[in-house]
Amino acid sequence: MSSRDLQSRFDRLRSNKVFELFVVGIIIFSALVIGAKTYPLPDYLHAVLRALDTGITLFFLVEISIRFFAEADKRNFFKSGWNIFDTLIVIVSLIPIDDTEMALIGRLIRIFRVLRMVSIIPELRMLLNSLLKALPQLGYVMLLMFIIFYIYAAVGSTFFAAINPDLWGNISIGMLTLFRVMTFEDWTDVMYETMEVYSLSWIYYLSFIFFTTFAFLNMIIGIVVNVLEDERRKIRDEEELEANVGQPTIQDLKQQLDAIQGMLEEKAR
Amino acid sequence: MSSRDLQSRFDRLRSNKVFELFVVGIIIFSALVIGAKTYPLPDYLHAVLRALDTGITLFFLVEISIRFFAEADKRNFFKSGWNIFDTLIVIVSLIPIDDTEMALIGRLIRIFRVLRMVSIIPELRMLLNSLLKALPQLGYVMLLMFIIFYIYAAVGSTFFAAINPDLWGNISIGMLTLFRVMTFEDWTDVMYETMEVYSLSWIYYLSFIFFTTFAFLNMIIGIVVNVLEDERRKIRDEEELEANVGQPTIQDLKQQLDAIQGMLEEKAR
Amino acid sequence: MSSRDLQSRFDRLRSNKVFELFVVGIIIFSALVIGAKTYPLPDYLHAVLRALDTGITLFFLVEISIRFFAEADKRNFFKSGWNIFDTLIVIVSLIPIDDTEMALIGRLIRIFRVLRMVSIIPELRMLLNSLLKALPQLGYVMLLMFIIFYIYAAVGSTFFAAINPDLWGNISIGMLTLFRVMTFEDWTDVMYETMEVYSLSWIYYLSFIFFTTFAFLNMIIGIVVNVLEDERRKIRDEEELEANVGQPTIQDLKQQLDAIQGMLEEKAR
Amino acid sequence: MSSRDLQSRFDRLRSNKVFELFVVGIIIFSALVIGAKTYPLPDYLHAVLRALDTGITLFFLVEISIRFFAEADKRNFFKSGWNIFDTLIVIVSLIPIDDTEMALIGRLIRIFRVLRMVSIIPELRMLLNSLLKALPQLGYVMLLMFIIFYIYAAVGSTFFAAINPDLWGNISIGMLTLFRVMTFEDWTDVMYETMEVYSLSWIYYLSFIFFTTFAFLNMIIGIVVNVLEDERRKIRDEEELEANVGQPTIQDLKQQLDAIQGMLEEKAR
Repeated sequence: MSSRDLQSRFDRLRSNKVFELFVVGIIIFSALVIGAKTYPLPDYLHAVLRALDTGITLFFLVEISIRFFAEADKRNFFKSGWNIFDTLIVIVSLIPIDDTEMALIGRLIRIFRVLRMVSIIPELRMLLNSLLKALPQLGYVMLLMFIIFYIYAAVGSTFFAAINPDLWGNISIGMLTLFRVMTFEDWTDVMYETMEVYSLSWIYYLSFIFFTTFAFLNMIIGIVVNVLEDERRKIRDEEELEANVGQPTIQDLKQQLDAIQGMLEEKAR
Repeated sequence: MSSRDLQSRFDRLRSNKVFELFVVGIIIFSALVIGAKTYPLPDYLHAVLRALDTGITLFFLVEISIRFFAEADKRNFFKSGWNIFDTLIVIVSLIPIDDTEMALIGRLIRIFRVLRMVSIIPELRMLLNSLLKALPQLGYVMLLMFIIFYIYAAVGSTFFAAINPDLWGNISIGMLTLFRVMTFEDWTDVMYETMEVYSLSWIYYLSFIFFTTFAFLNMIIGIVVNVLEDERRKIRDEEELEANVGQPTIQDLKQQLDAIQGMLEEKAR
Repeated sequence: MSSRDLQSRFDRLRSNKVFELFVVGIIIFSALVIGAKTYPLPDYLHAVLRALDTGITLFFLVEISIRFFAEADKRNFFKSGWNIFDTLIVIVSLIPIDDTEMALIGRLIRIFRVLRMVSIIPELRMLLNSLLKALPQLGYVMLLMFIIFYIYAAVGSTFFAAINPDLWGNISIGMLTLFRVMTFEDWTDVMYETMEVYSLSWIYYLSFIFFTTFAFLNMIIGIVVNVLEDERRKIRDEEELEANVGQPTIQDLKQQLDAIQGMLEEKAR
Repeated sequence: MSSRDLQSRFDRLRSNKVFELFVVGIIIFSALVIGAKTYPLPDYLHAVLRALDTGITLFFLVEISIRFFAEADKRNFFKSGWNIFDTLIVIVSLIPIDDTEMALIGRLIRIFRVLRMVSIIPELRMLLNSLLKALPQLGYVMLLMFIIFYIYAAVGSTFFAAINPDLWGNISIGMLTLFRVMTFEDWTDVMYETMEVYSLSWIYYLSFIFFTTFAFLNMIIGIVVNVLEDERRKIRDEEELEANVGQPTIQDLKQQLDAIQGMLEEKAR
């Protein structure tokens, strides 16, 4: 069998519905195995799970190979970020790890296999892409929010570090504390503590909450408006397309009137 | 009296406004009885409530029978999910339960009678239907969110189980803890505990909060946009309908111009 | 001076800008007096505040009288809810109260004077009206939410009353606890407590949070869509009005074409 | 070199891309220096940071001078709020402070230098401007919310001051406590405490939460609607512009029809 034949056979296999469902099934099964491992289990079941794990790894190796050989131009394969992600997960799973330290990282890699769910199901891939596409629009709001956080954390760790170093010890701890305040998580405890020393420090917290809430709201509103505008433009384009297919326009009427007027004028002469 | 006559009489009764209001009144009264039972009451009142309960059950039995016999084609009756729900509630209420264990379940069934409010009032039924119709649109976002939860819970129960088994003991407890983190409920307590061992674990929590908030926001925005698009399409269809009734279109003008041009050309020849 | 003259003079006074600003000033001043009273003050200041209070009461009496006499038809005066509210506040303030029990109620009445700010400033009155107008739209969602609360509270006080009577003692306490859960306020403490007895009770809390969040979101989306539709209709009406003023329509063109065709046909015959 | 030449050279320097990036770099560097100072550092590094600080101050002095001299009309320079802000920051940084009390204020001023990021990057400046422009629209809602807060705080400090003076001691502390309740931060602790004395005080808290949530929602919806209306108007104006360029209108057709009708009528005579 020539390499060409093999490639086209793999290609047919790759796009086979049953094969796809089977791969999704294996991914779900591997997710369940990962979940099962977090429960206390008898030793023999651990051995079973380890065997299943090796089986899943081998299956994924075969599956990624099929995908690779199915590609006519091998370079295209690595142009897709998802393919690179899949390949990396499979390769790292293959490295045998015995060290207890590394064993945790090995488990972490196996957990990330669940993400293959996203790479396999096109709807999830599209959803994630649309989420990621919305991110850069938020760029400047995020930067502004970071500046607000940085300034407040600098002020906080300058004035409050002596009061509670666990919360305001340095600028990074301060930013974490401010994130906590932004989520309203026991923020009054933080405030009451500093108000005992600086009785006006409620201004610090309230202004911070006001600024971040306001910036956050604007971010959301910005996204909503963007999404709605996109939809509106899409609808308008559709309408225009509809209007232009086969339908006479005012321009057509104008041309015809020009012709009629021309004929009448000629006769008048 | 023939069975046909009886059916049409029941049908008239079923659609009678007074009868409907009376049924709503009985449902509200049964809800009040359920509420009253949660208060400590003297024994004789308990007896009264039990008697009322039996009365309500019998009334509901009569009412559901009327609805059933009012239906011309009996098979249609069980095509409505609400009818099945009503019938089940009544039938289960009829089973006499004495065992204390089962008594709780009996009370539970009686509580669900309040839901008959939704099955009786058409506006509430429509509202619930529109809520349920919005759910499948959220399908893939929910799946994506579940994957995020699953991966983070797997990571969390792998690394943090030794720190606090009550919060991270296995993957299901881990998912519950993550839901708590998503609602910002004492999430810093959870974080500070793990940060003592893994000082970088704030990345775990902040990235989780970021992902879930972002996915949640996108879900909301998705619903808003969908609802608005539906409304817009409805309005546009209305406008088009309005425009097309009796009003001449550009197409009509075009035809008339064709006719005029034809007449002029004929004369010119 | 005749009663007619007096009325028109009062009317002019009532709509005088300076008089209005003066009344607003007095209301703000009365709000400050109320605020000042909550601070510990020396006795002589208390006497001053009491004197000021009497002064403000008398001023409001005069002001409301002016408004009353300024009205040509006295019956119209009591058709406005705000006028009734203002009059009641003034009348109750006039009743001398010495009893300590009643003194608190007297202070309460004086506090409600601040609401006169809303009755005086037209923009605030409009804002409040538009808020109130949005309420009935929410009617059925509120009813649905109440039914959800009632059912969950009945279930909660049936099963959890023995675990913690302070939180689940009866159906009203249960509803308050559920409101607390809805605001995510230490809801895990409530859940962990019941999970020790009923280990599956997390389903109760999570489903409740899911339902209420979902109903709440739908309520918000409903309001947004309603407001946007109103705006859109307003804009469309404006556009149509604009389009119809002086501009020839397709209908006009059609009539003219009919005329031309008629002329040509007549000539052809 | 004449003053004119110098000004135009400065002007060219000011709008130079490399110069701008360099200034942004220095601002980021100064932010890092501020952050570094919040960590415990060896003495020699402190000396280095102090030297860097002086260097940054001098650089900013030079930079602001360039901007000032680059301006053709010096009065325009102080018409921009950002220029005044920049100049103030630089001037105050120049004042030598040795006193420990004042040293904190000196550090505060240096922290505000990070805000120069906003004054330098045009996108951030625009974002902040658009945020600030949205504020006055909220004016009346904010006033209404303040009135709600004031009335509830007055009621709260009248009735609950004896129960917990730390939370309800006077009207300002009461407003802070109410803000805490609005953020749902341990609000049930506050409520349970007062419910022991006034068992109906849950009405106070629930009505407050209802009013503020409702007013807050309306504020957000108001902003969303405003932003969407602005966008819609912009799009409509674009469309109208598009429609009017070169395209024949119904009015044009009408004129031509008038001409044709005129010609025909003339012939008929």
